[in-house]
Amino acid sequence: MSQDLQALARQIAHELAAGDLAAPSAGAGGPPRTQIGGVPAGTHNHPVPAPTTNPPVAAPLGVRFVRQNARMADFIDHTLLKAEATRAEVEKLCDEAKEHRFAAVCVNAAWVRLCAERLRGTDVQIATVVGFPLGATTSASKRAETELAVTDGATEIDMVAAVGHIKSGDWSHVADDIAAVVAGAQGRLVKVIIESAALTPVEIIKVCAIAKEMGAHYVKTSTGFHAAGGASAEAVALMRMVVGDALGVKASGGVRDCEAALKMIANGATRIGTSSGVSMAKCLGPGPLPVTDLLSLASGHVGSCHTCSAAAAAPRDAY
Amino acid sequence: MSQDLQALARQIAHELAAGDLAAPSAGAGGPPRTQIGGVPAGTHNHPVPAPTTNPPVAAPLGVRFVRQNARMADFIDHTLLKAEATRAEVEKLCDEAKEHRFAAVCVNAAWVRLCAERLRGTDVQIATVVGFPLGATTSASKRAETELAVTDGATEIDMVAAVGHIKSGDWSHVADDIAAVVAGAQGRLVKVIIESAALTPVEIIKVCAIAKEMGAHYVKTSTGFHAAGGASAEAVALMRMVVGDALGVKASGGVRDCEAALKMIANGATRIGTSSGVSMAKCLGPGPLPVTDLLSLASGHVGSCHTCSAAAAAPRDAY
Repeated sequence: MSQDLQALARQIAHELAAGDLAAPSAGAGGPPRTQIGGVPAGTHNHPVPAPTTNPPVAAPLGVRFVRQNARMADFIDHTLLKAEATRAEVEKLCDEAKEHRFAAVCVNAAWVRLCAERLRGTDVQIATVVGFPLGATTSASKRAETELAVTDGATEIDMVAAVGHIKSGDWSHVADDIAAVVAGAQGRLVKVIIESAALTPVEIIKVCAIAKEMGAHYVKTSTGFHAAGGASAEAVALMRMVVGDALGVKASGGVRDCEAALKMIANGATRIGTSSGVSMAKCLGPGPLPVTDLLSLASGHVGSCHTCSAAAAAPRDAY
Repeated sequence: MSQDLQALARQIAHELAAGDLAAPSAGAGGPPRTQIGGVPAGTHNHPVPAPTTNPPVAAPLGVRFVRQNARMADFIDHTLLKAEATRAEVEKLCDEAKEHRFAAVCVNAAWVRLCAERLRGTDVQIATVVGFPLGATTSASKRAETELAVTDGATEIDMVAAVGHIKSGDWSHVADDIAAVVAGAQGRLVKVIIESAALTPVEIIKVCAIAKEMGAHYVKTSTGFHAAGGASAEAVALMRMVVGDALGVKASGGVRDCEAALKMIANGATRIGTSSGVSMAKCLGPGPLPVTDLLSLASGHVGSCHTCSAAAAAPRDAY
């Protein structure tokens, strides 16, 4: 990433944080924050409301924390999102997440209730996806989907941003769309999937700044279903720069072995969405370790580690 | 397709049509049809309600009709479903659909309102997708999504069946899921996307029979986003055999030139979901023609038709 781009990123992030985004509604008596997500069916072009602080929620695993004390499993959202995933596969996912004490399972909404039942009494979070994977449902629909998922037991919502509206430059819609899900999540952790491989660096910067303003708790690189590809270390670094230490950054899509995962962590990721979490946890041990020590393991085992090699060579899911 | 398979297909379709599917609720005082889709949040395992006739809706373009009198454009759902589709691209899609008098535009829900406004006063239908493309949201969510889309102006709902539950053998959930969308559509045309390339022939037969029982108006092969692929002539023929002449069959996913489209029509398709509709309409002329004459055009122009060749060689969207 060039110095020019870094300077541009800082400038845009600064301008957005300074309130340029909120300007349209500032003088127009726009709705207060508690109504941000109160989106009537199909209305998604009203002025962007003024940002306030994030709603009360357990802080995401922050950069400072993981620098001091990290288990590889703390980073893992154990993920199964393919259309044809069966009940038996979802149950196995839950059992693995429990065994390795992963941060979360990440499943499609139809399986949330099953996961919530199976993981009751554990610390494993129930993450599900909203507007997934195209991000092109309405804001009202995303909010309804979020509310239903919370009712079913979801504790983390991985929503897809309105990629088509990002590409159309309709930032008001993009902001409103995120705010609708944050409101629908009623304090649960919200991750905003930006589909970074399909965006320009400036688009990445803008949508990350907006996600932060609108009260999301994480920005996340990829759905794992887009033809443009998944996470890249460059995108993670850029996203981390924009959101600072306040938000989490999740790298997802194509992160299939420890080397890739640790590269993402070294660039600022605090969660890894992957279907290879079990092999990663086995490779890197139960921890906890200072993250510098964890990262130092990357070069030590690649090439000689059978688990990692097998994971990298296995038939590839979207994740 | 072997004779054995054809016999099996007829047997399963017959058994399902005879009421085997509806049996669980028949003696249990299950809810009447008007409540089929009244699915409380997250409840998706109650007994399958007894089937009744389809709700009042304009009959889909039937096999008999298109055999007598067909314009290529009558078959086309002019489709733009990629995540990054912009407002300008959606507007262009609408203008093309109006010019060529396509059956419908097929867009993501965030663009339905725009399309409904832009196509007001025309005969072009507004199709949108629900639970797309994974089919793994809850039935309650699919119903909410459907209701919001109808409010925004959608006249056709292309829903994705619960593929993971098909693979789990949970046919009660699959049926209930379709019924929820049919109820939410309030009489609008419902197409059930079965993701045929990811299913076995027996799974195709079962889900098509269930779609018919639950009051859907079309079965549709593919989302165009699944790694297993899109429409095949074999799948279309099998689907047509199961649903008979009463329902429409839509071939979608990878149908990119006239030869492919006409092959689907020859095998029983009554709609084609494609992003190549304009070149197809230009190739095959404004019609109408008896469908036998239309089909006879297939061999005549392939290889010598610049429009078709260009369409086949162009960078490929999901559709």
